[in-house]
Amino acid sequence: MNISKRIDNMTFSEIRKFIPYSDEAKERGIEVYHLNIGQPDIKTPEEFFEAIKSFEGKTLKYENSHGIKELINSFIKYYKSININLDKDDILITNGASEGILFALLTLCDFGDEIIVPEPYYTNYNNMAKMAGVKINSFRTYREDGFHIKSKDEILRNISPNTKAMLICNPGNPTGVVYTREEVRLLCDIAVEKDLFIIVDEVYREFVYGEEKFTSFMYMEDVQDRIVLVDSISKRYSACGARIGMLVCKNKLVSSEFMKLSQTRLSVSSLDQIGAAKLIDVTPQYLSDVNKEYEKRRDVLYEGLISIPGVSCEKPSGAFYIIAKLPLKDTNHFTKWLLTDFNLSNKTVMITPAAGFYSTEGLGLDEVRLSYCINCEDLKASIEILRHGIIEYKKHFK
Amino acid sequence: MNISKRIDNMTFSEIRKFIPYSDEAKERGIEVYHLNIGQPDIKTPEEFFEAIKSFEGKTLKYENSHGIKELINSFIKYYKSININLDKDDILITNGASEGILFALLTLCDFGDEIIVPEPYYTNYNNMAKMAGVKINSFRTYREDGFHIKSKDEILRNISPNTKAMLICNPGNPTGVVYTREEVRLLCDIAVEKDLFIIVDEVYREFVYGEEKFTSFMYMEDVQDRIVLVDSISKRYSACGARIGMLVCKNKLVSSEFMKLSQTRLSVSSLDQIGAAKLIDVTPQYLSDVNKEYEKRRDVLYEGLISIPGVSCEKPSGAFYIIAKLPLKDTNHFTKWLLTDFNLSNKTVMITPAAGFYSTEGLGLDEVRLSYCINCEDLKASIEILRHGIIEYKKHFK
Repeated sequence: MNISKRIDNMTFSEIRKFIPYSDEAKERGIEVYHLNIGQPDIKTPEEFFEAIKSFEGKTLKYENSHGIKELINSFIKYYKSININLDKDDILITNGASEGILFALLTLCDFGDEIIVPEPYYTNYNNMAKMAGVKINSFRTYREDGFHIKSKDEILRNISPNTKAMLICNPGNPTGVVYTREEVRLLCDIAVEKDLFIIVDEVYREFVYGEEKFTSFMYMEDVQDRIVLVDSISKRYSACGARIGMLVCKNKLVSSEFMKLSQTRLSVSSLDQIGAAKLIDVTPQYLSDVNKEYEKRRDVLYEGLISIPGVSCEKPSGAFYIIAKLPLKDTNHFTKWLLTDFNLSNKTVMITPAAGFYSTEGLGLDEVRLSYCINCEDLKASIEILRHGIIEYKKHFK
Repeated sequence: MNISKRIDNMTFSEIRKFIPYSDEAKERGIEVYHLNIGQPDIKTPEEFFEAIKSFEGKTLKYENSHGIKELINSFIKYYKSININLDKDDILITNGASEGILFALLTLCDFGDEIIVPEPYYTNYNNMAKMAGVKINSFRTYREDGFHIKSKDEILRNISPNTKAMLICNPGNPTGVVYTREEVRLLCDIAVEKDLFIIVDEVYREFVYGEEKFTSFMYMEDVQDRIVLVDSISKRYSACGARIGMLVCKNKLVSSEFMKLSQTRLSVSSLDQIGAAKLIDVTPQYLSDVNKEYEKRRDVLYEGLISIPGVSCEKPSGAFYIIAKLPLKDTNHFTKWLLTDFNLSNKTVMITPAAGFYSTEGLGLDEVRLSYCINCEDLKASIEILRHGIIEYKKHFK
């Protein structure tokens, strides 16, 4: 009566493993600034709540496994506004982007097949791949390059005959990279050359700052049948607790096969779908205000970080994360120490050690991922805590 | 660029494949009575909607991957009322029972492992098992026995060294069987003898009629560490569109490993959880009224069915399904014909051919599954449609 090797090989969330220490710090009266999670503090648009509050049905029935018509139509409208033309059969509503990625892996890969992913990458991809019995091969991208893609050879070297797809997050979590049009084109060319599907996670699409321009993989007309696009309302509309994601795919064979998986889990939350369908009515101002706010936060965090002696990072162009190198050897230990042994005027920060985002052993040990989902004032306070924390920590450890 | 063999081997929903014919019938002005799906027409308790409508949060955040405290506490209270004592770590909130079963399979089985399931069984188990790379071995139960378990040998014969768990639905979908205490004991003894886990789907627990007594597997004290109980509010509170299920497990190793999977998909719908947490305040009268209503419906459907010449079935004791043998050879063809070629005063019925519930090729071809989720008057009308439909069909086909 043993558990499976599969589950044994999976890992508990890197991001959440420090929660008990954070809880204990709070119990001791320490205020903890959370730079560890991608949970926006922005308000969910009123339209979402209003739609749900005016629901007049008496029985919460299973909805169509594909998703409710109103929601699918609203996404068609949204995509049209960013110059992507979809029809209803191209869209499947999922339980968040997470379910979408799992569905994509199950549909495109058999047990033992491989996918290729730029490293560092979102930790949960590891468990999703293990759920599907898929092996992740990674190719390295570097902090010094702002995690941009520099070498085609490095990518090709990591593609084997068993590689079925690439999995790309653009804008990137945990890196904040926004791939240029040239990079997107390069990845598409490799997909054609090696006959791969492209699973692309664009949940941070609306979070691109300054002069940077976002290039959706869907803009590449010649590879549309290779693309499985993963999207979600969680970040865009600050509605993480509404589990509404979607898969977009113009390859009719693939999208029709998705139905087998969606029918197996029957349907997605009816009320969350009803709420999400009304987000199309949110004014463009909402997204542009949110975008401006995040850009300010990025600047505060970035400027703050590089002002700390020994800290180095590049300025990211998207999402709401920065990977920074700290002047110490073990950010895992430092993260815990900040919660258990340190405070600055009864305040401390919770950060995420970056090693968990790398699949290559030994990488990222001196790096952390910081998210800027908290306001500018709190970010400034967090920077001062980090500055003093690093000095104090180095008195005791290397 | 091929899809996976895994997805290719999965099947589209048997239950839903006739929907286009039903839609066309409706377009022609035919009223269709749905005896094909387990979607209760009963009202979802007001408490659910009230809780959601009084939600005052401004941001829909990720909740704890495990589930919100209020909901877990409400389930502890519910389980206490049916004499099952749980503590909070025994419960994981899932996206419906479907996700719970998938999590159980992923945690207990490796690729290529097997589970044993009484046949006929809920069709979706097939795709869930294929998602996890698990093979289903079935042992047969018979309509003439009311789908009760008759032979220990038949079960043992189908257990191999690769069998890791049994998967039991009690009360049964599609059979309506309610296992006696002796049967539950027998299954537990086999689990001990063969060192198996017991995944038990008790979502129809509150739908047990007449003198019949329901025996939860959790009542068997000696095997509690082997049991993974799957439950949901969908049927119990007629809230299928709220995707709230749960896994209950007292084996601490197993339940802690579940966290890896729940963290990977982050969280379950916040609002659905908030609504579901208040269902504990629903008066016991609600469930007993619903139960009485279903008992009446079962009686109407059962008496009606056995009054049709050539139809045979046993009276089920639970859930809301009956498997009936019809006096014809191909219920798949008959199901389609009822929608495309037949009506009685502009009305027809949609039923489910039973073959899809069997894994043994050739079984169930002359059987259908009928659900009694519609009111007694409509059930009576449906019986007359079936009675005349069978006569008319037999004029043209065998």
